[in-house]
Amino acid sequence: MKPLCRDTRSKGELTKERILSEASRLIHKKGFEATSISDLVEATGLKKGCLYFHFSGKEELSLAVLEKAKADFLAFLDSILVGRTPGARLNNLFIGILGAQREMGFSGGCIFGNTALEMGDKDRRLSSFVRKVFHDITERVRKVVKAAQIAGQIRNDVPDMILARHIVMAIEGGIMLTRLEKTERPLKDCIASLRVMLGLTK
Amino acid sequence: MKPLCRDTRSKGELTKERILSEASRLIHKKGFEATSISDLVEATGLKKGCLYFHFSGKEELSLAVLEKAKADFLAFLDSILVGRTPGARLNNLFIGILGAQREMGFSGGCIFGNTALEMGDKDRRLSSFVRKVFHDITERVRKVVKAAQIAGQIRNDVPDMILARHIVMAIEGGIMLTRLEKTERPLKDCIASLRVMLGLTK
Repeated sequence: MKPLCRDTRSKGELTKERILSEASRLIHKKGFEATSISDLVEATGLKKGCLYFHFSGKEELSLAVLEKAKADFLAFLDSILVGRTPGARLNNLFIGILGAQREMGFSGGCIFGNTALEMGDKDRRLSSFVRKVFHDITERVRKVVKAAQIAGQIRNDVPDMILARHIVMAIEGGIMLTRLEKTERPLKDCIASLRVMLGLTK
Repeated sequence: MKPLCRDTRSKGELTKERILSEASRLIHKKGFEATSISDLVEATGLKKGCLYFHFSGKEELSLAVLEKAKADFLAFLDSILVGRTPGARLNNLFIGILGAQREMGFSGGCIFGNTALEMGDKDRRLSSFVRKVFHDITERVRKVVKAAQIAGQIRNDVPDMILARHIVMAIEGGIMLTRLEKTERPLKDCIASLRVMLGLTK
């Protein structure tokens, strides 16, 4: 019988990706604390020794999951922050976030928000990582807000950074309530009120 | 030696309150899944059988913790939603929420938001309970928003219910980021932008 886990470069990389993908799915669904190495053994069909060959332990694996989620989310953000004008880009951000939550069946929520709530008081490395993710997300939103202010497409009586943070916070709260209610209404209302309160025009 | 747990009415009630108080503290700090009956045995100094005498299991205890948190929070909400005018009441709501998070050292966050994120996809009874709590909170805020709209103290081009939900969602997101960053800045900025975007005057 062939060993399930070999250290040849390409197969090793594939195995690592498979572990990461299953870990991401489990952690997004169950959270960090409730996801055990045994759950991963079951989900991947790999041996425990093979998991430890690729990741030294749960913290390294959790950080790798967050790093992958960050890269994926920032790429997604770049893909939805598009449009002819900054106002259109902001509007497409709202539509894109709602669409993504709809595709997920309003389950799972936002992995960074989940991590902030689950690990914010417990694990310095994870919470510090997520702080930086929120910083990066907010900075991307801030640039579009600033451009929209200059173009006269949203209100300019509140600093760009504070508006960007407000958008991120309101959407995080909206995702939370939409996940709780399992309908799009909270997030949809959140976005509708954001549009009006920002004075957004395209 | 006297038994630690007796079923005389007054002492039984005291013991039950003590269990509930320790369970609240642990669940608010660690979450539902990470809080075990053994943690409670250690925290209260009571025997396991005594805990089960008062609560049939973890789910009943978790619901009791949420019921207590709901009663406490609605009483707190009533205590801060005060003021000469509806605009002043909304402003005092913002100040009160920020003050409460400051007193908690920006730890623990909001137990209902935490429950929504931790149990929203997992436990129907707990998530259904928290949905109702958010409904009750939003309804209290909506009444003040409506009165402030009638008094011309906030914008009236967005329905009262949608503004109330926006306030609740933005504050939940603000509490999440303030807990993550361990400074008041995110929640303070959230409130400042809410004031301007609502067009709030006292």
